[in-house]
Parts: sequence; C-alpha cells; structure tokens
Amino acid sequence: MPQSVIFDTDPGQDDAVAILTALASPELDVLGIVTVAGNIPLSLTTRNALRLVELAGRLDVPVHPGCDRPLRGPLVTAEHVHGATGLDGPDLPEPNAGPQALHGVDFLIETVRANPPGTIRLLALGPLTNVALAFSKAPDVAARLQDIVLMGGAYFEVGNITPTAEFNLYVDPEAAAIVFASGARITVLPLDVTHQMRSTKARIAAFSALGNRSGTAVAAMLSFSEGFDLTKYGWDGAPLHDPCVTAFVLKPELFDGRSVNVEIETGSRLTRGMSVADFWGVTDRPKNAFWVRSGDADGFYELLVDRIGRLP
Amino acid sequence: MPQSVIFDTDPGQDDAVAILTALASPELDVLGIVTVAGNIPLSLTTRNALRLVELAGRLDVPVHPGCDRPLRGPLVTAEHVHGATGLDGPDLPEPNAGPQALHGVDFLIETVRANPPGTIRLLALGPLTNVALAFSKAPDVAARLQDIVLMGGAYFEVGNITPTAEFNLYVDPEAAAIVFASGARITVLPLDVTHQMRSTKARIAAFSALGNRSGTAVAAMLSFSEGFDLTKYGWDGAPLHDPCVTAFVLKPELFDGRSVNVEIETGSRLTRGMSVADFWGVTDRPKNAFWVRSGDADGFYELLVDRIGRLP
Amino acid sequence: MPQSVIFDTDPGQDDAVAILTALASPELDVLGIVTVAGNIPLSLTTRNALRLVELAGRLDVPVHPGCDRPLRGPLVTAEHVHGATGLDGPDLPEPNAGPQALHGVDFLIETVRANPPGTIRLLALGPLTNVALAFSKAPDVAARLQDIVLMGGAYFEVGNITPTAEFNLYVDPEAAAIVFASGARITVLPLDVTHQMRSTKARIAAFSALGNRSGTAVAAMLSFSEGFDLTKYGWDGAPLHDPCVTAFVLKPELFDGRSVNVEIETGSRLTRGMSVADFWGVTDRPKNAFWVRSGDADGFYELLVDRIGRLP
Amino acid sequence: MPQSVIFDTDPGQDDAVAILTALASPELDVLGIVTVAGNIPLSLTTRNALRLVELAGRLDVPVHPGCDRPLRGPLVTAEHVHGATGLDGPDLPEPNAGPQALHGVDFLIETVRANPPGTIRLLALGPLTNVALAFSKAPDVAARLQDIVLMGGAYFEVGNITPTAEFNLYVDPEAAAIVFASGARITVLPLDVTHQMRSTKARIAAFSALGNRSGTAVAAMLSFSEGFDLTKYGWDGAPLHDPCVTAFVLKPELFDGRSVNVEIETGSRLTRGMSVADFWGVTDRPKNAFWVRSGDADGFYELLVDRIGRLP
Repeated sequence: MPQSVIFDTDPGQDDAVAILTALASPELDVLGIVTVAGNIPLSLTTRNALRLVELAGRLDVPVHPGCDRPLRGPLVTAEHVHGATGLDGPDLPEPNAGPQALHGVDFLIETVRANPPGTIRLLALGPLTNVALAFSKAPDVAARLQDIVLMGGAYFEVGNITPTAEFNLYVDPEAAAIVFASGARITVLPLDVTHQMRSTKARIAAFSALGNRSGTAVAAMLSFSEGFDLTKYGWDGAPLHDPCVTAFVLKPELFDGRSVNVEIETGSRLTRGMSVADFWGVTDRPKNAFWVRSGDADGFYELLVDRIGRLP
Repeated sequence: MPQSVIFDTDPGQDDAVAILTALASPELDVLGIVTVAGNIPLSLTTRNALRLVELAGRLDVPVHPGCDRPLRGPLVTAEHVHGATGLDGPDLPEPNAGPQALHGVDFLIETVRANPPGTIRLLALGPLTNVALAFSKAPDVAARLQDIVLMGGAYFEVGNITPTAEFNLYVDPEAAAIVFASGARITVLPLDVTHQMRSTKARIAAFSALGNRSGTAVAAMLSFSEGFDLTKYGWDGAPLHDPCVTAFVLKPELFDGRSVNVEIETGSRLTRGMSVADFWGVTDRPKNAFWVRSGDADGFYELLVDRIGRLP
Repeated sequence: MPQSVIFDTDPGQDDAVAILTALASPELDVLGIVTVAGNIPLSLTTRNALRLVELAGRLDVPVHPGCDRPLRGPLVTAEHVHGATGLDGPDLPEPNAGPQALHGVDFLIETVRANPPGTIRLLALGPLTNVALAFSKAPDVAARLQDIVLMGGAYFEVGNITPTAEFNLYVDPEAAAIVFASGARITVLPLDVTHQMRSTKARIAAFSALGNRSGTAVAAMLSFSEGFDLTKYGWDGAPLHDPCVTAFVLKPELFDGRSVNVEIETGSRLTRGMSVADFWGVTDRPKNAFWVRSGDADGFYELLVDRIGRLP
Repeated sequence: MPQSVIFDTDPGQDDAVAILTALASPELDVLGIVTVAGNIPLSLTTRNALRLVELAGRLDVPVHPGCDRPLRGPLVTAEHVHGATGLDGPDLPEPNAGPQALHGVDFLIETVRANPPGTIRLLALGPLTNVALAFSKAPDVAARLQDIVLMGGAYFEVGNITPTAEFNLYVDPEAAAIVFASGARITVLPLDVTHQMRSTKARIAAFSALGNRSGTAVAAMLSFSEGFDLTKYGWDGAPLHDPCVTAFVLKPELFDGRSVNVEIETGSRLTRGMSVADFWGVTDRPKNAFWVRSGDADGFYELLVDRIGRLP
C-alpha cells in the first residue's frame, strides 16, 4: 500500500520538482496539496499548484488554498529568485480546474482525522503557517501525523535570506516555532544538505534528455531559478532545496543526519527566523528533530530523473 | 435594532458578570459565545459559559469551544484567583445542554461573513488566541468587524500576573500582537480603568439585595474572586475587569480615554506580554487603539445592578 | 561628622538644584563632582558643574569629567527639555576654573578606596555610565560604597523619553543593568515620586523671594525647564527629579517606599531602558533596591528653599 | 623597524603559543601583555602570562592585569578544555616576577596615547572586556590604534560553547558589541579558519623535535588541550585558535577573507554572543571588519615551528 502524503507548499520551481517527483512515484499517494503564501503570494502559489497537477496529468489531486500571510507582519516574498509568476522558466498553460473551496488548514485537519493515526506524512516545502494554524486549532493533529518532513532552516550554511535565516523559516518564524515545539516527529532538510545538491549543467541536461513535457519543464525551471544562486555563490550549480524532501521520503538511505534539538529564534533583530540546531550536543535541550546533514547528490539526481521520466 | 455582539471569553467570575450583563440588556443581541483557555482550561471555560446561559435563561445563545492553548508554549491559568472551577462562589448546577460542534474560530468567521460588514462588535474577555486564529485563517474578518472591545493590558497599572503584563495578554502575547497589528478597530479596557472599578462591600450587597437568582450568583462570584486582590493590594474592594467591556458598549459616556499606539512585547524575558501604550504620544507610531484611562465607578456599578436585576 | 558624598551628574537644571542643595547643607561633605554625558554632551555638563560650584562659592569641590558617551550606541540628549546649554534660564557667567585632569571614573575609584568602607554615598543624577565603568574596572568599589542613591527609572509612571523608559536609564541601559546587578546597596528615586514634586508657581516664587543670587538662579532654572512638562502633562507644575536624591539623603522621612527587585531591560525594541520593578512582589527575584513610591511635596520644597537660602 | 603590538589575552594553551610565536619574531615588538578573565579566572591568566615571558626569556615585557569579569553577569570559564591552571600540559615553574601595578585598561590607553597614531596593533585573544572598557573610558583610542586583530566568533562553524556562539565573544557579548561598533579597524580570525588549523600528531611532533624547552612546552600544551575537541568533533587534530592572530600579523598571505559587516547578538537567549557576519552581503549593513574564511594549514604550522624554534 502506498504511503499517504500531503504537501504544504508555495511553488516555486523547486517545490514544483518536489511535487512532480512525488506524483510520479508509485510508493506515494498524494492525498492533496495545500498552498501557502511564501515565495510568491497565495493566489500564485495556488495557480502554480494547479498547473503542476495538470502537467502531471493528475487532476485527481485536490488543491486547497491555505493562509495568505504569515502569522505576524507582512509577507516577504522571493520573486528575485523565482520570477514574477513563481514558476518562471517553462511555458505552462493556465490551469483549467480551480482550487477546492475547503480551506487548506481544514483540509489538513479533516484528512488527518479521517485516516488512522500515524499513517500520513506531511511534506512541508514552504513557510509553516498552515501547519501551525492546524496545530493550534486542532491540537490532536500533531500527534496523529506519522511525521513532518520539511525543507527549511540551516546550521552550517546559516542563512540565505538574511545572514542567519533560511527563507522558509524566516517568512513565518512564529509558525516555525509552534511546529518545532508541537511534539510532532520532524525531519529537517536544511540548507546544510540542499546546498550539496547542485543543479550542474549536466544534471539539468539529463532532465531535458528525457524528452517528455515534464522533463522539459523541469529543465526549464531549474535553468531559470539557478541564476540567482550561481551569481551569489559562484558555484557550478544552484542548490536544489525542496526535492530533498520527496527524495528523503522515497530513499532515506541517500541521506545522513542526526537527532538534535532545534529551536526557532523569533525575537532578535539579528537572528529572527534562525533555526538554532544543537548539532554538537552542547546543551541539554531535548532532541525534537532529525537534522539531515549531508546527502548523495548523484543518487539524488538519478532518483529525480528516473521519476520525472515516468510523467507525461 | 439591537447591536450584534459575539463574546470571546474564558469565564471566570468577571467574565460571567460581563456576559450576564449583556444577556440582560435589550440593546444587545448576543449572537454566540466562543470560549478559550485562559483563567482555567477550555473544558471548564466552556462548561462555565453553558452554566451562564442557563442561569440567564438564554439557551438560545450558542456556545462554541475555541482553542485549548495559546499559540506558543503551555497554558498559564489563574485558579489562584478564580478557584478550581473558574467560577467558584455561587452554587450553579451542571449545565443541561452541551456546546456546539462548530469550532469557535469557525463560528466567528462564519458569523462575521454572514452578516453585513461593520455590524458586529467582538467583545473579547480572555486571551486573544481565537481572534488571532480567525484573523490568520480569514484575513477579511478583521475589517468586517465593527470593532473589538477587549479587556486586557495595562499602562499606568503596568501588570498583574508579572511586573509588566496583564493576565489576558500575557497568556498569549503572540495572539495579542497579531490582533493589535490586524488593522481592526480596537477599544482597550486595561487595568488602568478596571482597577478603578472596585467591588466594595456596599456594591456587592446591591447585587444580593436584588433578590433574584442572578443577583445572588453575582454577589457570590464577586465575594469569592475579590479575595486575591484585596490581599495583594490592600484596597477596599477588588478590581472588576471584564464587565467594563459590556459597560463600555452599553454606556461609553461612563468612560474616558484617548487614541494611542499599542504594541505587544513578545520577545523579552522581563516584559513579555506587556501592552506598550504610547499614552503620552512620545513616538511616531500610528494610533491603532482607543485606550480607556478612567471611568465612573458609581455609574458602572449602577448599570450592572440594573441589568442583573432584569435576569431571572 | 558630615556624611561624605560624591555626585555623578549631567547638569541639567534639576541636577543643578540637587547639587546646590547639597553644597548648602552642613550635614553633607561633597567630595567631588563627576560629570557624564546625558542631558547634554560631556563638555557642557562639565562646564555646568563648574558654574555651579562657582555660583555656590565652593571652588574647593573638584569637578572630574567622566565618560562622553554611553557604553553602547550614540548618545541621546534632551536639549528639548534643558535648552542648548543644558542650564538655560539663569544668567550664569563662564566658569573661571577648569576641571580636574583625573578621569571621573578613576576619581570615583580612588576616592572610594582612600576612604573607609561604607562611608561614601554616591548620588547619581544621570546615566550610569561612569558608575558601571568604575564597577567593571574596580570590582571592590560596589561593596565599599555606603550606597548609591539615584534618580532614574519608573514603574507606575512607566516612562518619559519612550513609553516605557525614563531618560537617565534609557540613555545607557547596559550601564544601568551593570549597576543594578552589582550587589551595591541602591535607593531609587523614580518618576513615580518625582512626578509628585511639582514646581508650581508658588513654589518657584519661594526661591525668587529668597533674594540671594542662588535663589534667583534656581527660580530661573525651574521656570525654564518646566515648560516642556507643563505642555506634555497639562499639570500645574513640572516634576522636579534630581533634587529628590539630595532630599532623600537629608530627610528620608519625607519619603515612602519598599524593597523590591529591579532589573533593567536592554534587549527589546519596545521596552529598552525600562526599569522593571517588582513592586507587587509577584516574582521570586531577589530584592536589590529600595524603591521610593511617594513623598511629601510640601516638605520637599520647604527643605530646598531652606537650603538654597543659605547659599550666596 | 618592528611592528608594535599589545596582547590582550587569557592564556590558555593556544594564547600561549600565539604569544610565544610573537616573542620569537623579530618583526614584532611586544609592548606589553594585558590579561583578562576568560578561559580561567584573572589571577590564573596573569600567572600564566608571567610564566610565558619567563619561558621565552623576555622579562622585559610587562604584564598588566585587566578586568576580572565580563561587563555583565558572572564569568564563564573553560577549564574543561584548558585544565585547572589554564595551561595544563607542560611543567612550567612558578613565575619569579610579578605583574605591573597599572591596570591593564590604563596601560592600553596610555601606551596607545604615548605612541604615534596608527602604529600599534592590538592582538586580542580573549573576551573583549578590557578593550571595551578602554574604548568607553578613552574614546580616542579606537581611532588611534592601527587595528585590532582578534580571535573570536564564527559564521560557518557557528559556535562552540553554545550552538551559536564562540567562547571568546560569548563570555562578554556586550564588550564585543562595543568593540565591533567602535569604528576601529578589525580583522577577525573566527572558528571558520581556526577549525582548519588542526594539530595533528605530526604537527605536534614537529614542535617536540625542536629540542628547545619552548618547543617541548608547546608540544605538551597542544597534546593536553586537543583532548576536548578530538572527542567532540572526531577529527584528526584539534583546532588551533589564537596563534592564527599572530600568524595573520606575520604572514597575512597565508589567509583568505573578505570585508563584511559583523554585529554581535546580546539579547536573545538562543543566540547570545553570536557574531552575525553578513558573509554573503545580503544586507546593507556597513562593512566593519575583515573576516578571515580560510588559511593554509601547512604554511601556518611551518611558521609556528620556525618561530618557536628560535626561543630558548
């Protein structure tokens, strides 16, 4: 029986690749996609999620819009990375279908409650606003989830949107703090590992070479979004963030990590949104997350290419 | 046509008097009561709300349980003030009816959306968890409310649960911060005014003298809850907090105040939960609340006695 | 034998009255005046201190310049209250004598070490920069002082320069935090009491009526500096802050207070510089200061007039 | 003409190697050594400094004790790394000479003022308490220094004493904040580079092989102090921190880095003492330090062995 998963996401090119990989994987049953404001405003993340299920030929997967802003303060977005649509690069048509009426937070709560405890993995690719709201409104949900696998945070890579904060957690630090204190089982794919997964020209070419429309779209997405990071870091390929989540669920043996304490800074001007991971175990704070430190980049890209190749 | 109001509350003896006063007032149409964890856990605040509508003979008023904990961290309660039931003092029977199934946050959202914009006043007597969640989930609600009238915070009286924080805002500072930044119109009844409304023996006696069951219950409530404050402050009567909200809605001419900026401290160990009111206008922060500074205590108690006297 | 005192001060009209009162009092032996940047820059506070000892005919009292800025960040001044010279109002000549070469911090340390332990009271009327530096450089000094009597902070009056901070502590919160954590015996004269000591027209007139040059100067100082507060608060007289320190040393029976814990907020944007006094004893923090809550305003002004009348 | 330098230090085995290397270098004129509390209490850091000048046969170099505690709060020490004496490992005799009477802060101020502007480099190897005090007491000193070269902080290596803070800056974050905001020219040797300089067995053996007493002592020091880090990190050699400062002054071409903004967190519980370096230039904060990112470990150890070999 396939593993049930729900995506919470703000696509975004890398969210798109993560979702497409899951939709292509027989091991996974994607129960639904909940959208959140993050890389771009909510209306665009919802539109992009709809375009993705159509690209994958998976109109059976419902898309539920969630929150349009972080718990506190105005939304910070990242069009400088993702382009004005959030999914710049490929030439994807307007979606034919629309989103569901049920609020994403309620879809999450109701779906978790309608399934046996410990059977759903929540794959979180954006700011954690919806997840925090679901946990606040329905305190049983954190314990009923099998776990959360999320892209966010950084320890050795420290930050990208500020010197000390990774974008997803920075956009809604209060939500992140709620989630990490919730008691839910959590696996974190931080910049520490996603910065190792670089989309070199050869790796992008492998998607193009697939010949299907999804492979072409993925290659176009990665070619677009890598521009920002290549300029910033001077590397031979941009980090690929969110697909690490799907890859971890499909093939955890590609990754190494350890159980650590993670707390989220919310108060400080200098370190707001930082994920303070006690990687070296120098405090007595309780371990509340599995922190992925490194991964097999070749194996990772092979997995993605294999799965994208199965799509239309 | 009566003014539509919704209560968000954690009864509590003073919440009880505020609600009973409203239920007795023909100027007000109480559309529902949403409960929240605060003075005592949610199961008890819900039970107490049900006991109040039965005491008032108003089983038509629905009670919707909301959130059982603050957005972050564990719940702080105040049984040392309110007793183990939260409504110690009077001998009230167990409620016959139960609460509604619809979550309090959704009742709030749906009711505000089902009514014309600007027609509902939200009377908030406890931690602002439900209100913050409603605003995060449904961003149109803040602007659709007529306003929020809330008991919470302090400036000249500074704090009661800590040296710098009033109990309601201290229990959920993140929620309070969300509400004060929401753009909703807000009137604040802080300790600055509620500490002027002291339940002297003569004033409590006036409720007893009414002779009805509600008057007897109110007198018993106030006699119980005043114990803590009399010991602490050495005054001739305890402050009466939440009924200031109902009284302000019924007779605003009893009160004086001014428009100020209010921000809520969330980060500092020493001042967490503080309502920083720029009462003297020494900053250029925008005015976002009407801050009530003083009130007519005699007129206030006359109003309460008059209304409680109209109940069974 | 008179009580030995050292002033640490940033005159300012109210500092001036505090110092003149001490210089006129046979119970006190003013060993020296250390200046600090605060109301105005250091060069002006030093110049004003020199003008004061000349006005009082006390050229024997040495003036030692201390620090020209707070431990962190740029200096905040208050010319809007005190005028460009810091001592606007009276027509005082340029000082003939100059300041001492020895740094004020070293004068403080050396004088305390040169006298028997527990014999010197430090009267602090400005930001606590010098005191903090002395305690850091010479850790024996805090315990060798008899005590510190300082004007600063607020609890019920909350703040004046910001909504939550009094000027002296706000200018150098880090220094204040060092001093309050030093273990020194401390008495605080906060806004809570200085706001009760209002310089009404009748009280100012009493200084003028003395007929001596010092009385004339004091009346002119108070007439100038009250302008700001009268406009802000709408009272019948401005608060008189620093002379409360000298009056407390001379006649403590004029004042009431209690021992409390005081901690200084340094981190928060909203409450930086706040003196968090646990006036109601709601925490288990250790008592580290005597907090003056109220005073006898008539007795206070009588004392000042009596002493200023003894000067030239 | 040799370069004038002053050490500010809390020896410590790695401080010792840094100082010995300088004392052996004809390019440098060590004007004095100021001690501070840090790795161990002040009495021991002063004793160790005296033992070092005797070991090197340089009794002409004066040792001036500075501050015995950080600006705020109690001292945190690191005997778990350095042993009870702070210089465990070699068998060094008690010093014959004693320290100077002049306080280290005043030695620093007076020496800088007595030399031409821009001619003295301050080599800071411990908490920055003395430096901050000197800058506060004598505001001209920051600009009169040629520069400060300091060991402290971390960006990619994040922290050692806490998950986010390096020991030297963590012990006195307020002092560090003062120094980084002082306008002085600063070069930082953070964990990012010192973690690359690992004292492998072969490298330690090269000191032993020198055959002089200083080489023997250095080998014994490094053999002792590496124990803690080897266990923690599982590396093949422990980081060597403070000698990077001397090496940078002697041979800057061994190191790479860039100019960045560095600010020090003081308020947050989670990130207190963190050096927030904007290494990627994602903010518009002004550049105030040169941040060394990497170094040539072989060249570094060759330099040290060469210089230690010149000592007795």
